[in-house]
Amino acid sequence: MNTPTVILPLSQIQDYLSEIDPIPIVERGFVALSSKKAVIPPVGELLFEKPKGETHIKYGYIKQQQYYIVKIASGFYENSKIGLKSSQGVMLVFSQKTGELLAVLLDEGYLTDIRTAIASMIALKHLAPKNIAHIGIIGTGIQAQLQLKYLQQVSDCKSIIVWGRNKEKAKVFKARLDNSNFSISISNSIDELAERANVIITTTPATEPLLKVHHIKKGTHITAIGSDTSEKIELSPEILKKANLIVSDSIEQSKTRGEIFRARQQNCLDKSKLIELGSLIQNPTLGRKNDQQITIADLTGVAVQDIMIATAVFDAFKNKNNEH
Amino acid sequence: MNTPTVILPLSQIQDYLSEIDPIPIVERGFVALSSKKAVIPPVGELLFEKPKGETHIKYGYIKQQQYYIVKIASGFYENSKIGLKSSQGVMLVFSQKTGELLAVLLDEGYLTDIRTAIASMIALKHLAPKNIAHIGIIGTGIQAQLQLKYLQQVSDCKSIIVWGRNKEKAKVFKARLDNSNFSISISNSIDELAERANVIITTTPATEPLLKVHHIKKGTHITAIGSDTSEKIELSPEILKKANLIVSDSIEQSKTRGEIFRARQQNCLDKSKLIELGSLIQNPTLGRKNDQQITIADLTGVAVQDIMIATAVFDAFKNKNNEH
Repeated sequence: MNTPTVILPLSQIQDYLSEIDPIPIVERGFVALSSKKAVIPPVGELLFEKPKGETHIKYGYIKQQQYYIVKIASGFYENSKIGLKSSQGVMLVFSQKTGELLAVLLDEGYLTDIRTAIASMIALKHLAPKNIAHIGIIGTGIQAQLQLKYLQQVSDCKSIIVWGRNKEKAKVFKARLDNSNFSISISNSIDELAERANVIITTTPATEPLLKVHHIKKGTHITAIGSDTSEKIELSPEILKKANLIVSDSIEQSKTRGEIFRARQQNCLDKSKLIELGSLIQNPTLGRKNDQQITIADLTGVAVQDIMIATAVFDAFKNKNNEH
Repeated sequence: MNTPTVILPLSQIQDYLSEIDPIPIVERGFVALSSKKAVIPPVGELLFEKPKGETHIKYGYIKQQQYYIVKIASGFYENSKIGLKSSQGVMLVFSQKTGELLAVLLDEGYLTDIRTAIASMIALKHLAPKNIAHIGIIGTGIQAQLQLKYLQQVSDCKSIIVWGRNKEKAKVFKARLDNSNFSISISNSIDELAERANVIITTTPATEPLLKVHHIKKGTHITAIGSDTSEKIELSPEILKKANLIVSDSIEQSKTRGEIFRARQQNCLDKSKLIELGSLIQNPTLGRKNDQQITIADLTGVAVQDIMIATAVFDAFKNKNNEH
């Protein structure tokens, strides 16, 4: 008889998530990846035309753990017109020993959004300059909002500058956070944002660079979250050329996706500056050397993040329900 | 608000399946594939060492249909030691328009087993000689047993000869079918089976050829189901060299998997003899010309089969529950 499959709806997933500390959990995933303890095949991808959409299948396992994970997450950017979130998805927990499906996490893309924001926090923790004047956030969508959910765990900075193509959405972003601990100001231009902020987080699905090399002053750290395909790009490749240190969440994935892929195509990538996030977590001396360096983290989203977050949620369920 | 996800357990899936006629449904999938109406990325694969296991992720969609499908199916061949089926899995139905997860079919690998058997029936229907003396089945596992579930829809032959490495399992296979319409005899050797049967279906995970070229007499049709990876092989490549017609369920997949892949590696594949199953369904004159020809169908399992069977089950659920 098969082990019965546990079905967790979003509300329960959110409850279990509130009981765990995802930053160190996801950090351990990146370390497993960089230590070659994870089996992570290339990302599966489906593209749709009408309406435009994309689905990524990220999957794999960490050796000697109990589970393997398959995560399906999509972005359908016209969903907001009909009142739906653009990001959708599900995470599946299987046994590494028998292949049984142990759990279906009906997260509607939420865990993918969370683990993406967590990776951004990990990059910030290890790469931001000591004194952060303002944190600039480019984009006003789900991922922009989620940056603030775990921010105080890695930084004391409370001053956020936001810029979005759509001014109304920037106002909604600000209004939602008016009663929070953060002070939110809306920037009129990327120039203004980049002039004031020495940490910039880009969270858009742009396919033309938003940040240009002239925007970047010494001492700035940039985390680029938006690009997870070969087409999307937020940073001019010249920025990567100018940077002192470039951190990839997966060097393997960066060969075909994200800012690093695009910079390499333009001969703007000096490989000697490139390290993997898991290596940096293991050895923080590889990171920022001083407050003058320009550092970049390019996050394309790796299955180890999905493996760690799905495992943590399912283990929290099992602990609560006394299953061992 | 997201559309609520429908969760169907195996027992309900089996009920809905009993209401549909899967052979023409899966045939339409193969035709869509061969007509370039399906978007089917390469198969995702995970391998496990202790215990040995493998997982395949097959996914995609047919253009202008409503859903996209992701199917995860695994084979953990030591599962029988602990009373579990070797094949496990799940099928997921998503909206092509929004990415929402519409249904989770908790089929425990059953729909994969069924759609695989159905493809074998389709091959038989289009390729078997007019007069089938006996149908030889090599292997005694789930797939061997399922060959008989839909057989009478495509053939009047009632005489089955089975051979398995494990004699006890062959006896169990026979015992299970003693009250059926079929006459089952156990063969002592592959030689004996191949001497008597002019249709042979191979259903094993063998990694060395079981059927050799000297086994194959004129007029025989062989369907090779077992090999769906680059490592597994059931037919000596010389058999493909000798054959008059070779049918692949997906010529694209046959470049990296299955008997055709292995024969090509050994320079035993004459491409002019190779056609795709969907093309044969559309144009039956491409098939067997007479009762002297040797024909081979090499089935590696294609996502269109999963798309069609999952769609049919979910549509049957919706019809029953008056959802449109």
